[in-house]
Amino acid sequence: MPRTSVLPPLVASETDAASAMSAALSTPYNSPRPEPPRRLMLVDSASAKPRRGRPRKNLRGDTRARIADAAAAEFADKGYDATSIRAIARRAGVDSALVHHYFDTKAALFADVVKLPVRPDRIVRQALEAPIERLGESIARTVLTAWENPKVKPVGVTVLRSAIGGSAAGGLIRQFLLRELMSAIADKLEHSGVPHAEAALRAELVLTQVAGVLIMRHVLGADPLASMPVDDVITRIAPALQLHIDGLT
Amino acid sequence: MPRTSVLPPLVASETDAASAMSAALSTPYNSPRPEPPRRLMLVDSASAKPRRGRPRKNLRGDTRARIADAAAAEFADKGYDATSIRAIARRAGVDSALVHHYFDTKAALFADVVKLPVRPDRIVRQALEAPIERLGESIARTVLTAWENPKVKPVGVTVLRSAIGGSAAGGLIRQFLLRELMSAIADKLEHSGVPHAEAALRAELVLTQVAGVLIMRHVLGADPLASMPVDDVITRIAPALQLHIDGLT
Repeated sequence: MPRTSVLPPLVASETDAASAMSAALSTPYNSPRPEPPRRLMLVDSASAKPRRGRPRKNLRGDTRARIADAAAAEFADKGYDATSIRAIARRAGVDSALVHHYFDTKAALFADVVKLPVRPDRIVRQALEAPIERLGESIARTVLTAWENPKVKPVGVTVLRSAIGGSAAGGLIRQFLLRELMSAIADKLEHSGVPHAEAALRAELVLTQVAGVLIMRHVLGADPLASMPVDDVITRIAPALQLHIDGLT
Repeated sequence: MPRTSVLPPLVASETDAASAMSAALSTPYNSPRPEPPRRLMLVDSASAKPRRGRPRKNLRGDTRARIADAAAAEFADKGYDATSIRAIARRAGVDSALVHHYFDTKAALFADVVKLPVRPDRIVRQALEAPIERLGESIARTVLTAWENPKVKPVGVTVLRSAIGGSAAGGLIRQFLLRELMSAIADKLEHSGVPHAEAALRAELVLTQVAGVLIMRHVLGADPLASMPVDDVITRIAPALQLHIDGLT
């Protein structure tokens, strides 16, 4: 069984990342889903290489593909938040443990299904390794530096635009970003003794400032922020992030 | 001569503000402009009421309409930043003073031409009446309170989405917002002795935080920020705004 999906790949190649993602995200996932022939999702993946000779008999690959198909269908039907690994396993006819074996987390499964070439949740988790009193600087540096990468920026711009736009596809991306980024930051704050609800609020405030800067510098390209050296932007943003992290104490 | 325009009205009525604006903003202004029959722009305006009896002979109204038409064409051709009152006057065949007489500023003319029911530049200028050491609180309170108005919010959401999206129409709105809001805040800072370039940077940083909060609370509707009483949001955002206003001094 070839790997197919109701979710088109977000990015087909590095060179036309933005346009491919735009096209993919403009597909209304929640409207009646296209019937066969479904779109192949093997683009950009090692297993996509055409094989010669004997027909493929890779059962492991088939199981992984069946899980990815089930995940794509669940995400499309229920949105990111309401989709569970358990429901994906049930839909694929496998054990939940097998889903975790192939994909680790729901975030990883989502990133795989939509062919997200960057993992925003991983970038933020890396930033969160800093001690709490330097977290503002660490988040500003990690996120803004990642966006300087010319392969990351077009994807990031498209993802942000999609998340803020009103489409169903954008809604899925939005849920993924909010859930994964907020919970990562809030968890870190809770481990430092901040109460649960307060931690969630501070995490969201951090995201408001991060999103605002990324939009102004990279999506709108508005000067002076767009043309400043990234280190200068980091210097300006870090204190505002730290202020949200510290709260009103 | 009936008042017509290449720019469709952003909002036809209060009840369907968002959908009307969406439709209007999806029109590609920079692609070949539609030829007659052009769309009437008298919606929502006192002068739009159908007249009975004698044919209209209001020369003043005609001049105003001719200026608005010329402005719409200039904005569509050159974008907000590059459009000058002088060029609009030339296109309309009138003196620049007459343009100022009818519309005061370029911002007012733009707001009139696209039927913007809210004037973001005025809201921010009102916030800037506070002393510099309380500016963060004043901006947070004025802007966030304005967005609590159920007539303002849907328009604001559509304007923000359009400004962040990639369309030509969105580009016009984006230029208008950046130019008018940044210059208002930067002027205030310059009057307090902040050097020109630094004032522009601080103004833009203020906008990153304001935009991020409006997006999270009103466009994405992400909790806890979306459900919090507005006063609590103001309390959280004001210090971050003040930090950007004060700079790194």
